[in-house]
Amino acid sequence: MPQRKIFDSGFRDELTQLLTWRRDVRQFRTDPLPPGTTERLVQAASLAPSVGLSQPWRFVFVEDARRRTTVRNVFETCNAAALAGYSGEKAERYARLKLAGLDAAPCQFAVFCDRSVLQGHGLGRSTMPETLDYSVVLAVHTLWLAARAEGLGLGWLSILDPATVVAALDVPKTWHFIGYFCLGYPAAEDDTPALERAGWEQRCDPARVIVRR
Amino acid sequence: MPQRKIFDSGFRDELTQLLTWRRDVRQFRTDPLPPGTTERLVQAASLAPSVGLSQPWRFVFVEDARRRTTVRNVFETCNAAALAGYSGEKAERYARLKLAGLDAAPCQFAVFCDRSVLQGHGLGRSTMPETLDYSVVLAVHTLWLAARAEGLGLGWLSILDPATVVAALDVPKTWHFIGYFCLGYPAAEDDTPALERAGWEQRCDPARVIVRR
Repeated sequence: MPQRKIFDSGFRDELTQLLTWRRDVRQFRTDPLPPGTTERLVQAASLAPSVGLSQPWRFVFVEDARRRTTVRNVFETCNAAALAGYSGEKAERYARLKLAGLDAAPCQFAVFCDRSVLQGHGLGRSTMPETLDYSVVLAVHTLWLAARAEGLGLGWLSILDPATVVAALDVPKTWHFIGYFCLGYPAAEDDTPALERAGWEQRCDPARVIVRR
Repeated sequence: MPQRKIFDSGFRDELTQLLTWRRDVRQFRTDPLPPGTTERLVQAASLAPSVGLSQPWRFVFVEDARRRTTVRNVFETCNAAALAGYSGEKAERYARLKLAGLDAAPCQFAVFCDRSVLQGHGLGRSTMPETLDYSVVLAVHTLWLAARAEGLGLGWLSILDPATVVAALDVPKTWHFIGYFCLGYPAAEDDTPALERAGWEQRCDPARVIVRR
């Protein structure tokens, strides 16, 4: 095994492009995914770091029409409640935002953290047990980037009541819900976040988030 | 602005290599980082997704020797307590693991989530407020990959008492501690996790984490 791997400036430039063109996608084409895509992306996700090498991520692909309907209903209820929390111009802007991709995306999946996982033997999470959930978030991001590199878009739905989603998906009780995702070919590509294009929010200067102590 | 960006198979292969060669590094060379490295990496991290475009990540670079000593002491205390939780062969293996890189790494930083952030106007986190912390984890992973592409290694320390670290770093009370990190040139490179090489744990077959519903 060669125990060295160097990445050149050409790759680094492309990596920056990948980060720049990765979007949280809400509008999808209905084209199906090529065979083997989900398996390949979960394989990439499994290269993510995890606390104590615990790999607690669990991917639940939701194919049943009734389960999908339940998730859509949960989203619509929660989204209406969230909209009610805004007023004036902000409420108008919120109402115009497209926040789900549930209608068109060919693939939907939920991601869980198996909090009962034995793998890793508890290493590294005695004082910060939340690192187990964080490990799953790292895997989601890995999948996200691998998907974008294939021309696929991912959308993360968080406007959901976790308890209702969990009940609909019939998973072990020790699995903690992290998020619900739509995956498919994006209707459009962009290097600017949709929320920035929609006038909801702008990105801040990265220098402003650095503090020295 | 061209609104299309395609990544070729050569880039995808290199991306897989990046994911494969990204390690959680605990043994560093003492060489300093090139000037501008931390700013450049935080800029890359700021391309990460965040709920409602809230960008709640805050990077605290720890340069003061007394603050670094406090963090090292916290680690040693917590690590000894964690070791006491294992017995027999597992305790012996634990004692042999190198779990910090605090001695040699030229750069140390803590990462926080500003839970009082107004950016994003609360979008997307009414039912799942934990997505704000998750956004910070996504930024950490982005920085991790960008660092590895430059030949730098990152180590995530989670065997820490958050309250003591937070007190030592003198940050706003609304900032929630996510993790503490060592950054520098790795003493060695590898395509296999250190915990696997040390016989602590092995990675599982990715197919086993997929469920269909």
